[in-house]
Amino acid sequence: MRTIEWHEDKEAVKLIDQTLLPREYKLVECKRVDELIDAIKSLKVRGAPALGAAGAFGVVLACINANSKEAVESEVRELKIARPTAVNLSYGVDRVFNAALRGKTTAEMKLYALEEANRIAEEDIAVNKKIGEYGSELLKDGDVVLTHCNAGRLACVGWGTALGVIRTAIGKGKRIEVIACETRPLNQGSRLTTWELLHDNIPVTLITDSMSAAVMRAGRVNKVIVGADRVVKEGVLNKIGTYMHALVANAHNVPFYVAAPLSSFDMESSYKEIEIEERNPEELIYFGSEQIAPLDVNVYNPAFDFTPFELIEAVITENGVVHPVT
Amino acid sequence: MRTIEWHEDKEAVKLIDQTLLPREYKLVECKRVDELIDAIKSLKVRGAPALGAAGAFGVVLACINANSKEAVESEVRELKIARPTAVNLSYGVDRVFNAALRGKTTAEMKLYALEEANRIAEEDIAVNKKIGEYGSELLKDGDVVLTHCNAGRLACVGWGTALGVIRTAIGKGKRIEVIACETRPLNQGSRLTTWELLHDNIPVTLITDSMSAAVMRAGRVNKVIVGADRVVKEGVLNKIGTYMHALVANAHNVPFYVAAPLSSFDMESSYKEIEIEERNPEELIYFGSEQIAPLDVNVYNPAFDFTPFELIEAVITENGVVHPVT
Repeated sequence: MRTIEWHEDKEAVKLIDQTLLPREYKLVECKRVDELIDAIKSLKVRGAPALGAAGAFGVVLACINANSKEAVESEVRELKIARPTAVNLSYGVDRVFNAALRGKTTAEMKLYALEEANRIAEEDIAVNKKIGEYGSELLKDGDVVLTHCNAGRLACVGWGTALGVIRTAIGKGKRIEVIACETRPLNQGSRLTTWELLHDNIPVTLITDSMSAAVMRAGRVNKVIVGADRVVKEGVLNKIGTYMHALVANAHNVPFYVAAPLSSFDMESSYKEIEIEERNPEELIYFGSEQIAPLDVNVYNPAFDFTPFELIEAVITENGVVHPVT
Repeated sequence: MRTIEWHEDKEAVKLIDQTLLPREYKLVECKRVDELIDAIKSLKVRGAPALGAAGAFGVVLACINANSKEAVESEVRELKIARPTAVNLSYGVDRVFNAALRGKTTAEMKLYALEEANRIAEEDIAVNKKIGEYGSELLKDGDVVLTHCNAGRLACVGWGTALGVIRTAIGKGKRIEVIACETRPLNQGSRLTTWELLHDNIPVTLITDSMSAAVMRAGRVNKVIVGADRVVKEGVLNKIGTYMHALVANAHNVPFYVAAPLSSFDMESSYKEIEIEERNPEELIYFGSEQIAPLDVNVYNPAFDFTPFELIEAVITENGVVHPVT
């Protein structure tokens, strides 16, 4: 099963519910755009490339359920802004909506939309594999690679970006170990990265985010590879904590790499113009149903941070490895 | 109620159960050394100065329950190594046991032990207030101070070290805000620091540990103050994550201070000789009763890290502010 795919018989988007991992592997189906928006906002599906596919398949849902071009357009407008920071969501929506416009009826629009959405999904896997090819050249046999959040197959349609690089390197016979940072507050590292690496028998050690500096000081890390939610003209927006890891990697002369498809690039924009999503304070006050902080405490909970190119050794794309000139 | 104190009627050590905060404020009594060791290992009582008092009162319990000097010695030997990293625990045990040795019977030993243990507890508060006096001179009206873990009154007998500095500064009329890092994996920042600051009406904002770099880059932090579990000849051992905050503070020219009583100093030792306690992997695999990582994942879970003096602007002690020469 891919992370996200179209189910034609049911006319539904089928996706792995990532909020239940690693305890439960469950697929959910969204038959309406509002269901898909809920799935995106609640992080059942997350990761910039997977959000691109979600946006793409969401346009197909809109074509099925709406009865005019205008109604489709109105539904996808909501979808496009379900989460603000990753550029891929709006990229997927726009590209598929433009393809759908070739249809005269909503039935025709659906056919064009589905064709384009499936193309985006196939491209995503192909692009990930190319990123893997280029990136794997940067890894040496025996490397220990630290990663943050989940930039694996669960963040994409299939292979993965940062973890795709590791998969490809291992496929080429290199021995690679991974240190996964748990990635607070939603623990995508604990829940998703360790799960998918163990599934593939890739050796992985889980640490808290705050341990990365200590493990680097101990000389236990050779490289850092993370994904990106958006690459802008001065650097990279990615999961909160990425900037911290980049600073400590640089302090220990550990190369810091970003693996990202070109669909995550938005080189016209400055990071200052991009909205950093602030999520619910309850993510830090509760852990599941357990209260871990006073209910009335003030919380700051940005989902992303900005890492300048100065701290990034290279960005690994499907067209090659880019060394930022700063 | 102090964090830890002697209850003469019951011949028991009474302490606040810190594992239940902030949901529940509950006092527990330990009447035997093994109960106290359990309370220490399970972190019902934690924080270097509070562990010093725990070690001190533990010797009193040993004198009450043992029937010979040798039996007392054997009980306190276990107590001394209940947790290995903070020096205060063994300092408290040794000092009180030496005082107890003046007694000829265990009944006499108990009297001498209790006198010395109460002296340690009183001294701790007096020392904290002196640290507060010296440290408060370093804070300016309007400062936003980031802290990690809990070096507050819950980590001590009363006033606190890092948070004691903030309390004293506020008592002198300075407006100070605190940013509390949640402090994974056991969330002493979320659970304890926010709780005790809200209790005193000190403005506090809770963030994840990984956000400290982003908030410093945004210019939101003027100072960092943390406590110490042990000050050695090259630097400071403190809660895991301290070294990360020190690196990012230095990268943003934010002064990084350590507040620590001289009883935490062990200047004869190198950090290389000090055992860094590695705690149970389950602390990262479960959150309370909720599973958040695959059960078979490898985990690295050191409780402390080492921060070299190069990254420390000053250590605030009861005898004054020491600027390390490196």
